[in-house]
Amino acid sequence: MSNISDDRLAPDAPQGENLVTSNLAVRRVAIDTYRENVVYLHRDCAVYRAEGFQALSKVEVRANGRHILATLNVVDDLAIVGCHELGLSEDAFLQLAVKDGHTASVSQAEPPKSIGALYRKIAGERLSRDDFRDIVRDIAELHYSKIELTAFVVATNRDELDREEVYFLTEAMVASGRTLDWHEHLVVDKHCIGGIPGNRTSMLVVPIVAAHGLLCPKTSSRAITSPAGTADTMEVLANVELPFEQLAAIVREHRACLAWGGTANLSPADDVLISVERPLGVDSAGQMVASILSKKIAAGSTHLVLDIPIGPTAKVRSMPEAQRLRRLFEYVAGRMHLSLDVIITDGRQPIGNGIGPVLEARDVMRVLENDPRAPNDLRQKSLRLAGRLIECNPDVRGGDGFAIARDILDSGRALTKMNAIIAAQGQKTFDHNNLQLGALTFDICAAESGVVTGIDNLQVARMARLAGAPKVIGAGVDLFRKLGDAVSSGDVLYRVHAGFQSDLEFARQTCAKSTGYTIGRADEVPHVFVEF
Amino acid sequence: MSNISDDRLAPDAPQGENLVTSNLAVRRVAIDTYRENVVYLHRDCAVYRAEGFQALSKVEVRANGRHILATLNVVDDLAIVGCHELGLSEDAFLQLAVKDGHTASVSQAEPPKSIGALYRKIAGERLSRDDFRDIVRDIAELHYSKIELTAFVVATNRDELDREEVYFLTEAMVASGRTLDWHEHLVVDKHCIGGIPGNRTSMLVVPIVAAHGLLCPKTSSRAITSPAGTADTMEVLANVELPFEQLAAIVREHRACLAWGGTANLSPADDVLISVERPLGVDSAGQMVASILSKKIAAGSTHLVLDIPIGPTAKVRSMPEAQRLRRLFEYVAGRMHLSLDVIITDGRQPIGNGIGPVLEARDVMRVLENDPRAPNDLRQKSLRLAGRLIECNPDVRGGDGFAIARDILDSGRALTKMNAIIAAQGQKTFDHNNLQLGALTFDICAAESGVVTGIDNLQVARMARLAGAPKVIGAGVDLFRKLGDAVSSGDVLYRVHAGFQSDLEFARQTCAKSTGYTIGRADEVPHVFVEF
Repeated sequence: MSNISDDRLAPDAPQGENLVTSNLAVRRVAIDTYRENVVYLHRDCAVYRAEGFQALSKVEVRANGRHILATLNVVDDLAIVGCHELGLSEDAFLQLAVKDGHTASVSQAEPPKSIGALYRKIAGERLSRDDFRDIVRDIAELHYSKIELTAFVVATNRDELDREEVYFLTEAMVASGRTLDWHEHLVVDKHCIGGIPGNRTSMLVVPIVAAHGLLCPKTSSRAITSPAGTADTMEVLANVELPFEQLAAIVREHRACLAWGGTANLSPADDVLISVERPLGVDSAGQMVASILSKKIAAGSTHLVLDIPIGPTAKVRSMPEAQRLRRLFEYVAGRMHLSLDVIITDGRQPIGNGIGPVLEARDVMRVLENDPRAPNDLRQKSLRLAGRLIECNPDVRGGDGFAIARDILDSGRALTKMNAIIAAQGQKTFDHNNLQLGALTFDICAAESGVVTGIDNLQVARMARLAGAPKVIGAGVDLFRKLGDAVSSGDVLYRVHAGFQSDLEFARQTCAKSTGYTIGRADEVPHVFVEF
Repeated sequence: MSNISDDRLAPDAPQGENLVTSNLAVRRVAIDTYRENVVYLHRDCAVYRAEGFQALSKVEVRANGRHILATLNVVDDLAIVGCHELGLSEDAFLQLAVKDGHTASVSQAEPPKSIGALYRKIAGERLSRDDFRDIVRDIAELHYSKIELTAFVVATNRDELDREEVYFLTEAMVASGRTLDWHEHLVVDKHCIGGIPGNRTSMLVVPIVAAHGLLCPKTSSRAITSPAGTADTMEVLANVELPFEQLAAIVREHRACLAWGGTANLSPADDVLISVERPLGVDSAGQMVASILSKKIAAGSTHLVLDIPIGPTAKVRSMPEAQRLRRLFEYVAGRMHLSLDVIITDGRQPIGNGIGPVLEARDVMRVLENDPRAPNDLRQKSLRLAGRLIECNPDVRGGDGFAIARDILDSGRALTKMNAIIAAQGQKTFDHNNLQLGALTFDICAAESGVVTGIDNLQVARMARLAGAPKVIGAGVDLFRKLGDAVSSGDVLYRVHAGFQSDLEFARQTCAKSTGYTIGRADEVPHVFVEF
């Protein structure tokens, strides 16, 4: 063994090198780097020279007792950042939470505490509960670079996580943010794993179950890769970005809300992970289970009905695959003490007629108003899901939920509840009998007569998205024909709405490659066997 | 089947939206984003609004017949980029290669052509030769974001690539850049897989084999995670960044060079991949083989001697592992028609005494000058490697190479050749009898008497790097004792040199955790069985 004998400073050591590191003035650099903290240092900044930073290295910024990690960009323009300044991108500035001009220090960052665990996962090892807690905490606190985030996402993709690891990940994600406690025994929620355009059942299930008296504080996401999330569609009708205290007050008064979940800081690591999963199209079973269940548990749900659609172009394409996914959801929910009811549904085609925020809001309001033009598939599916949730009420007999839900909807009580929620959140001007749709359109017509034997969820969603949804709320796809419908040559199958010429062109080019529809014989319509 | 019926533009369509996209003026934004193209658009830029871009989405920039892909950052400061400007980071600006103010257009990018192949690899599928060619081309042309690059690196880590895929990857990497042809039958090179501090054998092998008459156009890398690469150490003695034509002239005249390979555009995809492998510490067998062999083949080598060191803290830690790696190298080299001689060497400890550019240059020059202070391990290893290369000459009998190499070194012909190479590349002022070492130092002394039984390559390299090497060329670690040396309590084991106080502190903190040395009994020195 050996020890340290210290020569102290040689006499010609440069003095004060370690002092300048503390004397930079924070400067907000108005660049939105999207969830990656970036620090801008001038190339001639004494700190940059002294510390021997290299481009892309991670730095740690300290000010006012707080610290953040960031990626370093080197700047050669004094107009962006001066030699005595520390430029912070918008995200970094908000996270550090000090004023412009505040003194800050910067140093080469130690790697995130969990980097060793990340390396072990990259190398294929199984991780412990503590490993996941460390990794997820670092992710939630934005200590990971995009490179490290991507490495975690890819290294935990496919079957790289066993089911206990998925539980550890879920638990760590819940612990990474706020958890809500509604002080009731029964807090219900529903969720769909996604992938089915137009599937806006939440906006029907929530008012129905709340009208029945169940507590249903629904927070939803915005679209990630889809043409509309529930939050995007609800936003057509009402304000969805509410301060948490206001949301809680609405829930106390109306037993429900339909809001965007982004303000509540629930499972914040999930949002960070999604920022890299999205561009990679990665959505493995383990990541999906942890993402969904962590959000629900953090939101205080005690009972969850989970919708897993199956179909040739759904996320899940076979019953064995759906059952594997169901078992994983059930295992993790059990470990987390969440009562879970998994329902496997028909995912062969979009639900409802409209795809895109305004079009989907139209479908929802038609169902609530018992309008004869209401899409029946959306109505039936919503009633079945609501019925299952209503059966969480111990006073309701198994099998009675559907009829109760139907009575609530048919009697107009669901509409009344929805209108109360909309008013409480802040109503928008929306008239579904006079829709503000994207003014640029084209129609896709049947090239031959027959029966609709296939509608490609992915292709239809892609078109709606290219047409501008969800950003352009009136953009999207309006389906005139569904599976099994007879068509004659020349009949309009669907209409694409866009707000901008370039979007219309993108959608048109995609349609030219594939319309997403197949026409054939009635016996060619695929069957699915699903549970209700 | 169905077809497209087009309504054309609705009469109230916004006009000119698709025209403004072509009318932005390029502006060089002096931000060094390190190998990731970044485009800066003002939030109020008409193109940004019209195209519905989202932060982080990939955009395509076209100007003057060229096009690049970039990540979009949104800016709210007119001083950085105006509403009619298209800001480009340094990398993006250089790659687009137009003047400031040049007209450019920007549009939402189609995903890279190879994205489907990347998704398939993430999903665990085997890829074809064409897939690898597409992916590597996209990587070399900087069409991948850091997220996509990382996903590729992690998805091809460990045993995710079979050996034919490694061959496809190698071949694609060669094809992604320039390939040199020296118009000779025998073009030799040597390479070490790395991980051993101080291992500067190239700077001895090259002058020896060139003095023997072999053509050895050696291009080396700079340090990636190590305290010095061959290019960093050679740069202490001579200029290493030379235009390719000058390099070629030097090789024609002197039969050799010792230069940095970055200017020759050999296997450019490799450099891009390394930019994400480095921060992740990922270095799988498949990636290593493709990286090393693609560079050598692109450089026109016909014969390669490859050094695989084994030891408890080397990259390769057991003989079975070394043999597996050797077979993979041999398989791919065989498919690529490169004659390969793999040599498994002693990697239990650093080679030579100095670690860091100046200290390593001192060791090299002492060996060349037959100085009695020259480290014998560096001399012996270099002679063995040079001997094996000399045996590539069909006129040399197997087994005679070592003696030929020793004669060249002992006679001073290697030194003469080295001085000629240095003079040709451009000599620096360097006097190894009057070294300009980092002035801040501390010594690590033995805490007890005994024999040095272990030197941790990783810990010693970490210290040298924290002390400032290779950026501070006089920084590093000078080893006074090696494996098997007897020491008395208080003897200096090594000295750390730094140029800056903060660097010295980092190194000191690391030493305090572990000195990297173990002292014990003579019979505790680990044995290795290696081939020469």
